[in-house]
Amino acid sequence: MEFAKPLPSYLVTRYHGWKATTYSENQGWYRRLASEGQRPRAMVISCCDSRVHVTSIFGADQGEFFIHRNIANLVPPYQPDGDHHGTSATVEYAVTVLKVAHLIVLGHSQCGGVQGCIDMCKGHAPALDAKESFVGRWMDILKPKFSLVEDIEDADAQARQFERQAVVASLENLMTFPFIDSAVRDGTLSLHGLWTDIGEGGLECYDPRAGRFQPV
Amino acid sequence: MEFAKPLPSYLVTRYHGWKATTYSENQGWYRRLASEGQRPRAMVISCCDSRVHVTSIFGADQGEFFIHRNIANLVPPYQPDGDHHGTSATVEYAVTVLKVAHLIVLGHSQCGGVQGCIDMCKGHAPALDAKESFVGRWMDILKPKFSLVEDIEDADAQARQFERQAVVASLENLMTFPFIDSAVRDGTLSLHGLWTDIGEGGLECYDPRAGRFQPV
Amino acid sequence: MEFAKPLPSYLVTRYHGWKATTYSENQGWYRRLASEGQRPRAMVISCCDSRVHVTSIFGADQGEFFIHRNIANLVPPYQPDGDHHGTSATVEYAVTVLKVAHLIVLGHSQCGGVQGCIDMCKGHAPALDAKESFVGRWMDILKPKFSLVEDIEDADAQARQFERQAVVASLENLMTFPFIDSAVRDGTLSLHGLWTDIGEGGLECYDPRAGRFQPV
Amino acid sequence: MEFAKPLPSYLVTRYHGWKATTYSENQGWYRRLASEGQRPRAMVISCCDSRVHVTSIFGADQGEFFIHRNIANLVPPYQPDGDHHGTSATVEYAVTVLKVAHLIVLGHSQCGGVQGCIDMCKGHAPALDAKESFVGRWMDILKPKFSLVEDIEDADAQARQFERQAVVASLENLMTFPFIDSAVRDGTLSLHGLWTDIGEGGLECYDPRAGRFQPV
Repeated sequence: MEFAKPLPSYLVTRYHGWKATTYSENQGWYRRLASEGQRPRAMVISCCDSRVHVTSIFGADQGEFFIHRNIANLVPPYQPDGDHHGTSATVEYAVTVLKVAHLIVLGHSQCGGVQGCIDMCKGHAPALDAKESFVGRWMDILKPKFSLVEDIEDADAQARQFERQAVVASLENLMTFPFIDSAVRDGTLSLHGLWTDIGEGGLECYDPRAGRFQPV
Repeated sequence: MEFAKPLPSYLVTRYHGWKATTYSENQGWYRRLASEGQRPRAMVISCCDSRVHVTSIFGADQGEFFIHRNIANLVPPYQPDGDHHGTSATVEYAVTVLKVAHLIVLGHSQCGGVQGCIDMCKGHAPALDAKESFVGRWMDILKPKFSLVEDIEDADAQARQFERQAVVASLENLMTFPFIDSAVRDGTLSLHGLWTDIGEGGLECYDPRAGRFQPV
Repeated sequence: MEFAKPLPSYLVTRYHGWKATTYSENQGWYRRLASEGQRPRAMVISCCDSRVHVTSIFGADQGEFFIHRNIANLVPPYQPDGDHHGTSATVEYAVTVLKVAHLIVLGHSQCGGVQGCIDMCKGHAPALDAKESFVGRWMDILKPKFSLVEDIEDADAQARQFERQAVVASLENLMTFPFIDSAVRDGTLSLHGLWTDIGEGGLECYDPRAGRFQPV
Repeated sequence: MEFAKPLPSYLVTRYHGWKATTYSENQGWYRRLASEGQRPRAMVISCCDSRVHVTSIFGADQGEFFIHRNIANLVPPYQPDGDHHGTSATVEYAVTVLKVAHLIVLGHSQCGGVQGCIDMCKGHAPALDAKESFVGRWMDILKPKFSLVEDIEDADAQARQFERQAVVASLENLMTFPFIDSAVRDGTLSLHGLWTDIGEGGLECYDPRAGRFQPV
């Protein structure tokens, strides 16, 4: 393991700053979280994108949100075939072990993964089509929704709309998990779909009755 | 989609607070991030656990860290078989598209996923052994490392050590990805292994020469 | 006073969010409340329990409710002996200075204080019996009502019923204060007894004619 | 109990609105709080004043804060004499049963109780001096601090300063409780002193090193 390197010093410095301030001010709470375990109220599924941190937008502190982040905040359909399914494992743990009350999918504007999927669907991204492309194969989850936005001529408008459809696709796939379907029916779990505009700081919530996203 | 609900009002309130303060104070930066795209310096792979937010520990702002969070901060070995591989897609995107300079794996104490893996290895968790258990199948990634901590008698000490081994396992698996191996050899990417103690706020970094974690 | 610490930063963030939104939108009203003084319509006596906020249930805004919160929403009997009586001071101030029109006692399900009183009455809580137990001595106020629920066999049903009796006990004790008795007789003050079910969001109101609580 | 009346209809209406929105959106969380019990991170001791709701200032939702409200946010010194001590019972429950990590005392401007104490100290409030005055006897807790503000000539400035001293007095009295002193020394509990300006929406935090309150 000769490749692993020391932590860059700018991060060491920041860590010591955090230890002397945030940690110090909250030591009692951190110790209690360590000894009693976590009990988050909500799980959030959002994108890895460095421009969208749900802890910032919602002022979430230690212990509040169980957070899964992947490319384009996608959830694959239920498929218990014995293979590694990282995303399915996160929702299984959140719903059956932690018993979170809310499951929030947060999409966002200028999503690189969603744009890649559009490029694939339009035949402009042969590299993503390759069997070996992990990003391409991951974005396959979203492909069936492309027909819903195919006719939007403006490229930006089409991408923004497809980002929202990625949220809806994840919500629909979440409902294919038996333990989620059952918790939703019991009234112990609710699903929520959000989309945020990075540049303008906007936030929209999916309204299933209207069939579209509305500003909160 | 009748099940999706409005966003709980306490989160709506917090969002509006964020919009009026953090967003408002940084609007120029947010707009630039939206129009020019992200350019993160580092990717972090950490756990979904609600008690460990890397953005807090390292004071990360919008645009700095590309963050993947899954159960027990695990990376599976390179396996380009055409299936959905969410974690592999995140590292592929970070290294080949965003060209991050650092790839940091952050483990932590009191990890429920790692504890589950110990329970499986000791034969105490039949539910996790079931083919249908996504958490169990995901934690299979870590199983081969159990022999390294099998002899530690104290249960807490064993768990803490296995959590550190989960970080090492992920670093090793990362090196099986050709694009990572190549970037590390070229000197354009460095890997880092970290482990944090939730209750005490400690942070340790893997030192490959010493073959163990050292406080930063 | 070396022990007092800075405010945890997550609360600082939330405060600034409140200042920039709720406060800012209502500045004129807040300034008027500051310069003219409060003139609340009602006083509410409820429990400290973190799961029951009367301001949420009744959408109470600044200036509407004068709120006293203690363990198990209890009011001790009138006892003007010159000692500190925190609860008696709150009702004296509300009725004789602020001249509120309503005095509402709000009980709730899963009340830890009421459960402690049941444990004491059944001889299962020696720690609460100790002279030094402030919680035990406070719950003594409710003890005389235990005979009313003693025969209920189901433990949950018994606790729920005893929580309602705690509300009735407080209403009865309130009437032992001369200034309350007099205001009620004059028709300038009315008392109300409520009980809420945390899990189901139910609300019941005490009906003195029926001698029991009815859903509102 | 002929005096208890039905709930005023404007409150019935508001309750049904809450049930259909806030409760409905959070049903899973409310049910979980009911079945698993509360686990608040902080206790707040604030005034009954209708103009200061800590849940609003800090965006606190169900389950976050254990809240005691009394006249002038006062805590009497430790006095385990077997009498009813409502305030002491609340801190005993919060620290020894709930094991909160933070104990926050929140004072505020234009506090009627503090003004009454000033009037007593200046000999202008014979009614409050009477043995039968619950408010007067309660405010006796603060009297020893009057010498610290006695020389301030401007009446408003004196009142504002005395309100801050009420917070310090409560912090000092809290430290006379053995279980609080011990939890603070163990690093599992931290105390915080705050004062808010109603009209201007300001918030100050007590800084023990500087010996005074500073804006947050």
